[in-house]
Amino acid sequence: MTVSPAERDAMRRALALASTPGVPLGPNPRVGCVILSADGATLAEGFHRGAGTAHAEAAALNAAREQGIDVRGATAVVTLEPCNHTGRTGPCAQALIGAGVARVVFAQRDPNAEAAGGAATLRAAGVEVEAGLLADEALEVNRVWSFALTHQRPFVTWKLATTLDGRSAAADGTSRWISSRSARLDSHRLRALCDTMLVGTNTVAVDDPRLTVRDEHDRPLPVQPLRAVMGERDLDPASLIFDDAAPSLQLRTRDPQAALAELHRRERRHVFLEGGPTLAAAFLRAGLVDEIVVYLAPMLLGAGRNVVGDLGIGTIADAVHLEVSDVTVLPPEAGEDANVRLTLTRKV
Amino acid sequence: MTVSPAERDAMRRALALASTPGVPLGPNPRVGCVILSADGATLAEGFHRGAGTAHAEAAALNAAREQGIDVRGATAVVTLEPCNHTGRTGPCAQALIGAGVARVVFAQRDPNAEAAGGAATLRAAGVEVEAGLLADEALEVNRVWSFALTHQRPFVTWKLATTLDGRSAAADGTSRWISSRSARLDSHRLRALCDTMLVGTNTVAVDDPRLTVRDEHDRPLPVQPLRAVMGERDLDPASLIFDDAAPSLQLRTRDPQAALAELHRRERRHVFLEGGPTLAAAFLRAGLVDEIVVYLAPMLLGAGRNVVGDLGIGTIADAVHLEVSDVTVLPPEAGEDANVRLTLTRKV
Repeated sequence: MTVSPAERDAMRRALALASTPGVPLGPNPRVGCVILSADGATLAEGFHRGAGTAHAEAAALNAAREQGIDVRGATAVVTLEPCNHTGRTGPCAQALIGAGVARVVFAQRDPNAEAAGGAATLRAAGVEVEAGLLADEALEVNRVWSFALTHQRPFVTWKLATTLDGRSAAADGTSRWISSRSARLDSHRLRALCDTMLVGTNTVAVDDPRLTVRDEHDRPLPVQPLRAVMGERDLDPASLIFDDAAPSLQLRTRDPQAALAELHRRERRHVFLEGGPTLAAAFLRAGLVDEIVVYLAPMLLGAGRNVVGDLGIGTIADAVHLEVSDVTVLPPEAGEDANVRLTLTRKV
Repeated sequence: MTVSPAERDAMRRALALASTPGVPLGPNPRVGCVILSADGATLAEGFHRGAGTAHAEAAALNAAREQGIDVRGATAVVTLEPCNHTGRTGPCAQALIGAGVARVVFAQRDPNAEAAGGAATLRAAGVEVEAGLLADEALEVNRVWSFALTHQRPFVTWKLATTLDGRSAAADGTSRWISSRSARLDSHRLRALCDTMLVGTNTVAVDDPRLTVRDEHDRPLPVQPLRAVMGERDLDPASLIFDDAAPSLQLRTRDPQAALAELHRRERRHVFLEGGPTLAAAFLRAGLVDEIVVYLAPMLLGAGRNVVGDLGIGTIADAVHLEVSDVTVLPPEAGEDANVRLTLTRKV
């Protein structure tokens, strides 16, 4: 790969633009773009703000146009391979060619089979293309989206709250509160990073949760993930999950694979599994849990509901193995136990 | 408290002496002593090397005598209140008075009712006494011993190895290995810091463990804790726990309180509870677990043996609460899962 120091700096800037907090909303990746003159000066920049709005390259080209800047012969530095297809907006590869850009440096190759091929289109039009600059950093920015496009299904995070002895409720069913308030707030923060929350019909029938994302004052956030409930059972339409605080959807299947296929069709990228032990066990048995976030309360019950149902495992050699990716002690509020958050990923 | 900078420095040195690795062996506290001249120069120093050997004050006075140094009018700086009773050695308070020491500065007050009263004896003999200098640091050096003497029973550490879902073995009873090799080595390091390992008769009958402390090459360490087994059942005298690799003892009771009373009578200070779920539950129900060390394996089983038996807890409000005092990710060996070690203490 031959890239100039100015291009490397521009890619860092493009990654920062891609990481602008709060964007994109919806199913699209985070992308940033910086346009450099032949001598390495920044001419314009842009980033993608979410489905239905301009892609990063188009945003940067628009910015240049608005300021009357000529980008002919310039270099576009983009965090993702420019797209090649017409979706809600036109193909970026064509837009760059049309604007007379002479060189494109991008980081991550597009994992979206539908949108890929931008590099080839650019090269065919005589544009010089360099791929892979800071690709790992770019992948990290769109970790979940890249997974979803590569595997053609949403990334699944299972969130659980447990005692030291693996219980999610006491013998009489009480569970308020196993987790500290800090842990509960932290899980709302994580909910807000997903686009779908998923529970089973049983959880709706028994617990009737709201499943909205709320702030520390218990106020709902302006943007809410989809509340999906999975199972064949008919539910009371008056269940809180069907109120108008957020969109909701019943997936009439018990098969995790079918549920994820339907969510993928609806362009959902990140499912936050919040259901009970049976739903979690179904996803684990199907090998469809990609990440586990455990809120571990320093507490013992000795009896009560297990955090996970039967996995069909009879012997230690068949255990489900995970990899610890993060361990954080959550500072407690006054009078509370400090909980420990463990983040684990599926061992590949 | 009026102490000179030289005395404060001497106390730090005495604490370092007290913390000399490998001592004391046996039931005694770690103690260090520094003797200062009237102008603050160090005349001699000493520390306690274990039951049956000279106490720290006597060791320092001996060192001075051997070098022909006159300690009349000197100040003794000691990490623990000089003892007042004749045990395996004579009372230190008398030894200091006899040597003509004019002033004694000590850190921790003696929690041992039998040995206490040294400060009063010294004062009655006209020796100036200052108590409490760096007392917290001194307490930390003898945390377990102080607990045992204050509560008149050994400090109890329960060690457990668990999956994320609170299982210590799979459905068929297999458990090798839930913990990583790093975790197993770490638990041997902790075993070596205790003076007693305790299991139930069931563990001996079923697992026939050696319960020796071994190094990373599986070689037994030169000093071994007592291997205690508790329960009324008769055991096979050929059980490994009764071999000559280390001392062993059967406590013919099912009552944790009675077992600890007998161990206290035998001057045991730190019990490492290594038994199964029933023994652990008995100690937890009796409120006799002071510390828990959890080796958490990033693994799910969905079924199998629970880490702890029934605690008689029916509802969440009655849960046993603990406090997280340390969380450490244990670096794994090649091909292994990183385990997480959690250290928790009883909430008071």
